Amino acid sequence: MRTVYVIGIGAGDPEHLTLAAIAAMNRVDVFFTIDKGEAKSDLAGLRSELLARHVTRPHRVVVAPDPPRDRRAAAYADAVVDWQGRREAVYADMIDAELPDGGTGAFLVWGDPALYDGTLRILESIGERTPVEVVSVPGISSVQVLAARHRLILNRVGSPFLVTTGRRLAAGGMPAGVDDVVVMLDAHNAFAALPDRDLDIYWGAYLGTPDEVLAHGDLHAVRDDIVRIFAEHRERKGWIMDTYLLRRRLPAGSR
Amino acid sequence: MRTVYVIGIGAGDPEHLTLAAIAAMNRVDVFFTIDKGEAKSDLAGLRSELLARHVTRPHRVVVAPDPPRDRRAAAYADAVVDWQGRREAVYADMIDAELPDGGTGAFLVWGDPALYDGTLRILESIGERTPVEVVSVPGISSVQVLAARHRLILNRVGSPFLVTTGRRLAAGGMPAGVDDVVVMLDAHNAFAALPDRDLDIYWGAYLGTPDEVLAHGDLHAVRDDIVRIFAEHRERKGWIMDTYLLRRRLPAGSR
Repeated sequence: MRTVYVIGIGAGDPEHLTLAAIAAMNRVDVFFTIDKGEAKSDLAGLRSELLARHVTRPHRVVVAPDPPRDRRAAAYADAVVDWQGRREAVYADMIDAELPDGGTGAFLVWGDPALYDGTLRILESIGERTPVEVVSVPGISSVQVLAARHRLILNRVGSPFLVTTGRRLAAGGMPAGVDDVVVMLDAHNAFAALPDRDLDIYWGAYLGTPDEVLAHGDLHAVRDDIVRIFAEHRERKGWIMDTYLLRRRLPAGSR
Repeated sequence: MRTVYVIGIGAGDPEHLTLAAIAAMNRVDVFFTIDKGEAKSDLAGLRSELLARHVTRPHRVVVAPDPPRDRRAAAYADAVVDWQGRREAVYADMIDAELPDGGTGAFLVWGDPALYDGTLRILESIGERTPVEVVSVPGISSVQVLAARHRLILNRVGSPFLVTTGRRLAAGGMPAGVDDVVVMLDAHNAFAALPDRDLDIYWGAYLGTPDEVLAHGDLHAVRDDIVRIFAEHRERKGWIMDTYLLRRRLPAGSR
């Protein structure tokens, strides 16, 4: 049998690595990497830095190209499924070719493998063709870094919070029945179109990295600033990843 | 000015500590601890172990008793607010008495300071009386350990998930509009009363500790087993902390 670790390495700060992640990295023979192109080269550089700093045993790094993905497709879920099919083939081929029986491989993933990352899903999908023992190692996600930087608690006393996507927020607005909403994967500033007048936003981009930028305030007061900051940074670096919390201001005592 | 770190130390596995948490612990003069009584002594023991293993500079540990809390109060939110008032006084007195100007204190909190932990809220509340510079350091939460152990991704493709409490689930059932619900702080097995026939449950208790216990399956098929396991373990150890994901089974292609 072969073992594949899926190791969360945090959102960008090398200090957010856990001791468990370092221990797992030191049981690995082959690190599998998907090349996402120039735009994410900062992140690839950090991954190399983590290996150089923490892995003390001989290991190999295998790189495969990421299949192209149509992010503009109207049928978004279908496009994702199609892209995942091609990606599954890349993963299965790479593991079959490079990981011998009894060997240990690993994928180092940004944030936490449990949060808007597809690696675990792909490994499950290819399980019949390419059976491996999967071990998931949690990591600090960008949501947690966002909360820490703003000194936030994500939930209010006894209350729920929702984690959703920019696409969902753009399509449906603030979800009913919840006053605290974390938004990920928003390439189009969905917050800026919300009509709600009683929301605060706590925003961050490049969380955990030296480029980290934060903003917060009444949504309608600061949304234009955030849209401008977002555009400037994306222009300068060629890519941007942001995350934010929308928090409805509640009348005192209404909790 | 005084600095107080609020450091997430993970859900119970000492290996889930981050490098950033260790670095922060080594900048601390005074570790503040709230004594929650015998029931949580396993957790207090782990906290001492982390200090002994990772802190290499002289430091003090200050312990204050936790104010009693009425968990059975009908007006739950009011009871929490009242308890927080008393707790705030304990925190403010402890910091004022033990942390000199220019000093650095810390609270080590289970999981992540951003997730159902009140420390950041208390420090903000006492800010006028007892001003301190607060630094929040994220940690691996029990939700993340639950997901890792079951090799779960919390969200489905492009979909949201909700994090809520056992009390909310017991009062309102499965929330509308969301098919993936993480439940925390459930002392009364709220899952067992759900009428829904299309739910899977992924359950775990004492996550990250040597006592960790897991179960999963069709909710109606496994709920009685989980209720029994929960009762047996609580009886044996004197306390239990569990977390679970409820996931609605969706018809193929319905995403």
